[in-house]
Amino acid sequence: MAKNINPHQIANRIASRNKFDDVDILFQLLIDGNPLALSKAITIIESQKNDDQIKALGIIERCIQHQKETTKKSMRIGITGIPGVGKSTFIDSFGMLCVEKGHKLAILAVDPSSESAKGSILGDKTRMEKLTQQKHVFIRPSPSSGNLGGVARKTRETMMVCEAAGFDFIVVETVGVGQSETMVHQLVDMFILLMISGAGDELQGIKRGIMEMADLILINKVDSENQKKINQSKTDMLRALHYMNLNEKGWNCQVETVSGLTGLNLNEAYEKMTHYFKVIIENGFYDINRKHQQLQWFEQELRDEVWNNFLHQSQISNQIKELKNKINNNQISVKMAVKKVVDQTIKNATKK
Amino acid sequence: MAKNINPHQIANRIASRNKFDDVDILFQLLIDGNPLALSKAITIIESQKNDDQIKALGIIERCIQHQKETTKKSMRIGITGIPGVGKSTFIDSFGMLCVEKGHKLAILAVDPSSESAKGSILGDKTRMEKLTQQKHVFIRPSPSSGNLGGVARKTRETMMVCEAAGFDFIVVETVGVGQSETMVHQLVDMFILLMISGAGDELQGIKRGIMEMADLILINKVDSENQKKINQSKTDMLRALHYMNLNEKGWNCQVETVSGLTGLNLNEAYEKMTHYFKVIIENGFYDINRKHQQLQWFEQELRDEVWNNFLHQSQISNQIKELKNKINNNQISVKMAVKKVVDQTIKNATKK
Repeated sequence: MAKNINPHQIANRIASRNKFDDVDILFQLLIDGNPLALSKAITIIESQKNDDQIKALGIIERCIQHQKETTKKSMRIGITGIPGVGKSTFIDSFGMLCVEKGHKLAILAVDPSSESAKGSILGDKTRMEKLTQQKHVFIRPSPSSGNLGGVARKTRETMMVCEAAGFDFIVVETVGVGQSETMVHQLVDMFILLMISGAGDELQGIKRGIMEMADLILINKVDSENQKKINQSKTDMLRALHYMNLNEKGWNCQVETVSGLTGLNLNEAYEKMTHYFKVIIENGFYDINRKHQQLQWFEQELRDEVWNNFLHQSQISNQIKELKNKINNNQISVKMAVKKVVDQTIKNATKK
Repeated sequence: MAKNINPHQIANRIASRNKFDDVDILFQLLIDGNPLALSKAITIIESQKNDDQIKALGIIERCIQHQKETTKKSMRIGITGIPGVGKSTFIDSFGMLCVEKGHKLAILAVDPSSESAKGSILGDKTRMEKLTQQKHVFIRPSPSSGNLGGVARKTRETMMVCEAAGFDFIVVETVGVGQSETMVHQLVDMFILLMISGAGDELQGIKRGIMEMADLILINKVDSENQKKINQSKTDMLRALHYMNLNEKGWNCQVETVSGLTGLNLNEAYEKMTHYFKVIIENGFYDINRKHQQLQWFEQELRDEVWNNFLHQSQISNQIKELKNKINNNQISVKMAVKKVVDQTIKNATKK
């Protein structure tokens, strides 16, 4: 019977009942390319509910199984750059090129500050006017809940779900200078830094930590600047890169001038990206890096779980409550309070 | 006997033997204003060695005791702003004003990216030419080791040591957009955002999360811009602030135009800062906030300790090793591996 109903009908019917309860059905719809199923799967992954977390485990297990059965290699690309560098415009134009080249494109945002700053990057999809119209494009704003680690975990799982749904070009967008870049770097195969020319010495200095992570630097907005300045920027950049250590990947960071606005050199940027992937797949870095990232993920997730379990011990939670009171009344220092809990925990473990 | 030797001589002699072994002597020299003792105490706090960590506990306990015995209230001020906004120049000029007003000024940097980006903010003290000459100024670069949490902990303890040494004006400088601001916000009494005029809509949007934390916004570099643009910036900023919720502190964020280069309005900025402190000390927010921060600190430090202890259990560490191998060989998913460790831990706890 069910075979006579097309997947879209199933999806619509189940969604309207607020169900998708069966993970097998959900996953089948997902890999068949049903957009509702994709959204639903991601909602489950981002959910804090116990029921959903069990389902999320099931979805991720299936993604891994599905991934083993395919030889397709997705491209996970992190893009960063300070505000004003033209990220949205660039991704909008560049994404259109990717679609034309036959890719299915997912754009995920990572914004650690989004909790208090509602409506920052990608909160407003209208910034990518062209892409939002496209069938083969999926745009997802940053998960709003929790700390950087939580955002990372959810983004990682969202990537896997998108890949199971057939998206092969995954762009993870982040903003600014700081921790979020390091985190995104742990999620992707390739890291792209968007810059503008003539941004000054101080900016270049600050960016060094991030420049060291970059596989490709794109100097954007070459539409609005004069040619001499742009060439100078490119030369400066190449000189700076020259002093950096050779990349463990067997790849030297490259530099390209582009314009998200006029579309200048987007094709060249695309060629450089696909060439990068060819190199790292051939020399094995692609696989080694993904395995390394999995181990990082394991440790991060375990760490969170250990803490949650620790807090659920009633004995400990009483002691912590008591110590918090003492801290509040200046009866004990924070350092000493921590020592007391740890000593007690060790004592308990030995006693048993 | 020892009474006939002046503290500087003691310090020099002990330092030359690489000692300062006695925490009591070290702390006495510290509160007497000995600069060597201050540096040594901070070095101990930043150290990873077991011996030093025990000493650090002793130093912090003494700082807390010393703090209880005084009625002086230090001012902990976080200053942030994206690269290029002129932070160093501003702090250099503004710091000179603080010294003239009779303060002892400590400037601490927090830079989560400093590990890979050697030589970013404050790595190079020469950026604050005027301040580095001053006797009543102490400048300390960002602790280079570890994650954001580790940097926060060390900065917190460094602040306490500086305060015991008589520094009453503590500036914590950080850079960029992202997690480090949130962290610095947890360390200070007052949060100042440095901006430049006409930085564009996108920038303002991104900054909203940080703007919401700000107690004072300084529009810097009014030397290089025209007056109309500056007034417009100030109006825009005040309008944006108008739409934000009233601050829990009983204080509305204020805006001032300044120039680190020419010194324009630095006195006005200083007046606004000291007025802010007068308000929050009177209405009790100063004390409430510091207590709240202590509880945050307690939880963060405890979390790290719990994880470290967990890893030291030999049974668990073998299981983790095994699971890491399986992850590497694609025999298990990360999520499932985490579940296995947690299930085993719970089982062990119940068995005992």
